[in-house]
Amino acid sequence: METKAVEPKTVSAHRDPEQRESMNGAESLVKTLLASGVDTCFANPGTSEMHFVAALDRIPGMHCVLGLFEGVVTGAADGYARMAGKPAATLLHCGPGLANGLANLHNARRAQTPIVNIIGDQATYHRPFDAPLTADTEGWARPVSVWTRTATTAATVGADAAAAVQAAMGAPGGVASLILPSDVCWDEGGQVAAPLPALPVPQVSPDAIQHAARVLRSGEPTLIVLAGSALLEGALTNAHRIAAATDARLITPMSNARVTRGRGRLAVDRIPYSGDIARGKLAGIRHVVLVGAPPPVTFFAYPGKSPRPYPEDATIHVLARPEQDLGDALARLADEVGARGAELPATASLTLTPASGAITSEAVAQSLSALLPEQAVVVEESVSFGRAFYPGTVHAAPHDWLQLTGGAIGEGLPLATGAAIAAPGRRVVSLQADGSGMYTLQSLWTMAREKLDVTIVLLANRKYAILLGELAGVGANPGKTALDMLDIGNPDLDWVKLANGMGVEGARATDMDTFNDLFRMANQRKGPFLIELVI
Amino acid sequence: METKAVEPKTVSAHRDPEQRESMNGAESLVKTLLASGVDTCFANPGTSEMHFVAALDRIPGMHCVLGLFEGVVTGAADGYARMAGKPAATLLHCGPGLANGLANLHNARRAQTPIVNIIGDQATYHRPFDAPLTADTEGWARPVSVWTRTATTAATVGADAAAAVQAAMGAPGGVASLILPSDVCWDEGGQVAAPLPALPVPQVSPDAIQHAARVLRSGEPTLIVLAGSALLEGALTNAHRIAAATDARLITPMSNARVTRGRGRLAVDRIPYSGDIARGKLAGIRHVVLVGAPPPVTFFAYPGKSPRPYPEDATIHVLARPEQDLGDALARLADEVGARGAELPATASLTLTPASGAITSEAVAQSLSALLPEQAVVVEESVSFGRAFYPGTVHAAPHDWLQLTGGAIGEGLPLATGAAIAAPGRRVVSLQADGSGMYTLQSLWTMAREKLDVTIVLLANRKYAILLGELAGVGANPGKTALDMLDIGNPDLDWVKLANGMGVEGARATDMDTFNDLFRMANQRKGPFLIELVI
Repeated sequence: METKAVEPKTVSAHRDPEQRESMNGAESLVKTLLASGVDTCFANPGTSEMHFVAALDRIPGMHCVLGLFEGVVTGAADGYARMAGKPAATLLHCGPGLANGLANLHNARRAQTPIVNIIGDQATYHRPFDAPLTADTEGWARPVSVWTRTATTAATVGADAAAAVQAAMGAPGGVASLILPSDVCWDEGGQVAAPLPALPVPQVSPDAIQHAARVLRSGEPTLIVLAGSALLEGALTNAHRIAAATDARLITPMSNARVTRGRGRLAVDRIPYSGDIARGKLAGIRHVVLVGAPPPVTFFAYPGKSPRPYPEDATIHVLARPEQDLGDALARLADEVGARGAELPATASLTLTPASGAITSEAVAQSLSALLPEQAVVVEESVSFGRAFYPGTVHAAPHDWLQLTGGAIGEGLPLATGAAIAAPGRRVVSLQADGSGMYTLQSLWTMAREKLDVTIVLLANRKYAILLGELAGVGANPGKTALDMLDIGNPDLDWVKLANGMGVEGARATDMDTFNDLFRMANQRKGPFLIELVI
Repeated sequence: METKAVEPKTVSAHRDPEQRESMNGAESLVKTLLASGVDTCFANPGTSEMHFVAALDRIPGMHCVLGLFEGVVTGAADGYARMAGKPAATLLHCGPGLANGLANLHNARRAQTPIVNIIGDQATYHRPFDAPLTADTEGWARPVSVWTRTATTAATVGADAAAAVQAAMGAPGGVASLILPSDVCWDEGGQVAAPLPALPVPQVSPDAIQHAARVLRSGEPTLIVLAGSALLEGALTNAHRIAAATDARLITPMSNARVTRGRGRLAVDRIPYSGDIARGKLAGIRHVVLVGAPPPVTFFAYPGKSPRPYPEDATIHVLARPEQDLGDALARLADEVGARGAELPATASLTLTPASGAITSEAVAQSLSALLPEQAVVVEESVSFGRAFYPGTVHAAPHDWLQLTGGAIGEGLPLATGAAIAAPGRRVVSLQADGSGMYTLQSLWTMAREKLDVTIVLLANRKYAILLGELAGVGANPGKTALDMLDIGNPDLDWVKLANGMGVEGARATDMDTFNDLFRMANQRKGPFLIELVI
């Protein structure tokens, strides 16, 4: 850690850094983040962050992206890191600002996304006075964080920042929350901290490899559940070889942070959302081998139904926990079962033509397959209407597929924003349901301001369609009160006007041919474009 | 508490209540809420709440209002209770749904607003499986709540609901959070609970009255800080008599949940937001007597400045804590100091004409004074531009003034929504800054759907103006990075299009004459109207 002479404390924040021997806490924080490789900050600052903002002005190198609501900020930080493979910083304002970003931090936690989550807060000596904005910032942060710390002095906040980056990047990745009292920022005596080494990624034990190999050689029907880094290309190839050599089936959870897929790539099915459908699909399975995945469970409980999407009498085996080296475990398991030479499944290359006529889930999937740009980043929060999108786009041009991982709706548009910042030159295609899109529609403004290459396909069914299904699932015929609470028409949302109001151009499609034309056009533009698909 | 025979458990939710001897937990919950006087529910439900929604369908009497984001739901519940004097229920979906509503629950906590905050959650037996949406619902709820409980059985959830209403209504009022696992809703055996008696409101001790009287009789400059129910009309009259008889000064905190004011009513100043201005205004004060208020403190700390807006050597005295009977305390103190016959200050009735020409804070205040409808409910989240609004409207027609109390921006539009539901027949005037309005703009859709009589005056300065002031306050000249983070133009938000996109009509004003015409017209309409005032 670098140490510097500390000059007498001053409270002036307006000075030329070249003329000073010391720096304040905020400056040491910004310099430490940059030194640790964090060069993007999604922000919605307030008064307590003004010294941090002033430091960002004085120190070049940090790309600051403003969100008009904290849910945009945290969701964008999630999308950024999923594509960049390294964390962005957030900048949030006090406990309530954090609270507004919690739902997407919950999603990031489930995605195991590294985020350096910085929350400005009351000065250390001001907090006891319980001023109006004072809240339980630490208490709110902890449930979504792998690491939570409140900085205490300007001299140590640099070290705090380096520790936060290290913690966020520790396998499998997570949210490191650094709470930043305002006096820690403005006091002099900041010290830039050197980057800390990456935390070691533990390997799985030889016993775990041999145990999984015995299960796979048993000849009994076995399911291998792959999650997190097991979905990266090398790991996935080994998993497919293991499956080919042992007749095991591969599957992923319903929701995944990032899947690299499309034409010419190996594909993996997902566990269906519906427990009934999943149990049908997985009937007969005797063993479930987990590779970085938790034991599968249905999203919700239903009266009289099992919480498990696999047979009750199947046995769970853990090859590797999420924090272990999944790629290494799959490589060693492939060796153990003699699968290194196994033939990989064919990756048939099927060229599709765009769909015509009426708008259906399958038709949209067909058009996406035909028209998706090479190396697109697809962000899917299509909820009920999107059922055909994932299976139906297996032959689309090579792309990445990002999903909502924690079930907290309202992350699609922020994820698309952050992914576009992280992957310039690649088109982001946001497949977005209307009900969830309304949660964080402020994202559109950031897309316009940053001129992000995002095509938003806004699926306007004007109802919480998934909930109408769920209500039917509990055996109720919806009456007027229920319909009023699940119908988001009356008045209909006009998404083209909403987009225009935030500086994003848009158009409406009510048939597939119009959609195809708009989708082609949008993907060739610079900057964002919204297609309201009335379904 | 009513008890009923319990029929064998079934899992069917679709049945005729007339044909059944028992009810499920959700039904007992709805019936208990209605019996306890809670007849309005602001909701954004999800899967785990479907049995509650089905129960709302079967049991008449609950007015359900849908919000398209949880921050709308919780802020509307706050606004409702401030005007109705009794709590509404919320209906939120799991931990992340609660998280989205936390910032406005924080504001409600600071406003001491009674809210029955219901959060549907995973079934009791499903929670241990840690399905994707599972989060620390209790942990997030507790910091904003006076009472937090997770229901455990259908047989006891009715009693839980009655206890929640009692807790929310206990002086001075607060958020009672009831977490509702889905199986508690769908299990049979629900029992309706009778309303619980109001919790007693403790009186202040005779010692406290006598001590305050001695301070007031000392002849030394004394400030009386009034908050909460001390601002209700009878209490306020006694406070004014005490001030008249003892030469004490009256003041309120900067932000108050509800002040009943306007032409012909007694007025009270507020403690200025700026510590420097406040200390100037309160120079010479020797004693501060608190009536339901915390010791005054500046909103934020600033380098080298006192956190106190009153002289450092003044002595703090507590006449009454927030949970005590403030009206009784002021009446007894008035007797003690012989102020019952004291002459009240004149309430001069000044008739103003609307302002012409350029749009300034003072001009808007003047037009509001001239044009505010009788018995309007003003909801102010005007942040920096609104400095003249409160002092400048003291002569407006009698009205209520509602403010953001916890500093968590994004409550103005939700407060207006809830206030309009609670006070049909009264015009709600929402004075709303653009930056904070963007946090919860989804409120506009609920206003359109419910045809609420709200006039939104949207103050579009296209920047976080207050933060530019704060940045200057820390001595920094904003550079490009800082300006980019504080400027919300580029692209400009078009609030008329945003309103139209959610079914609310609107128009733009760039001078006071146009504003006056639009404001008059809007206030005479049925339903909402948005005026974008470009400032």
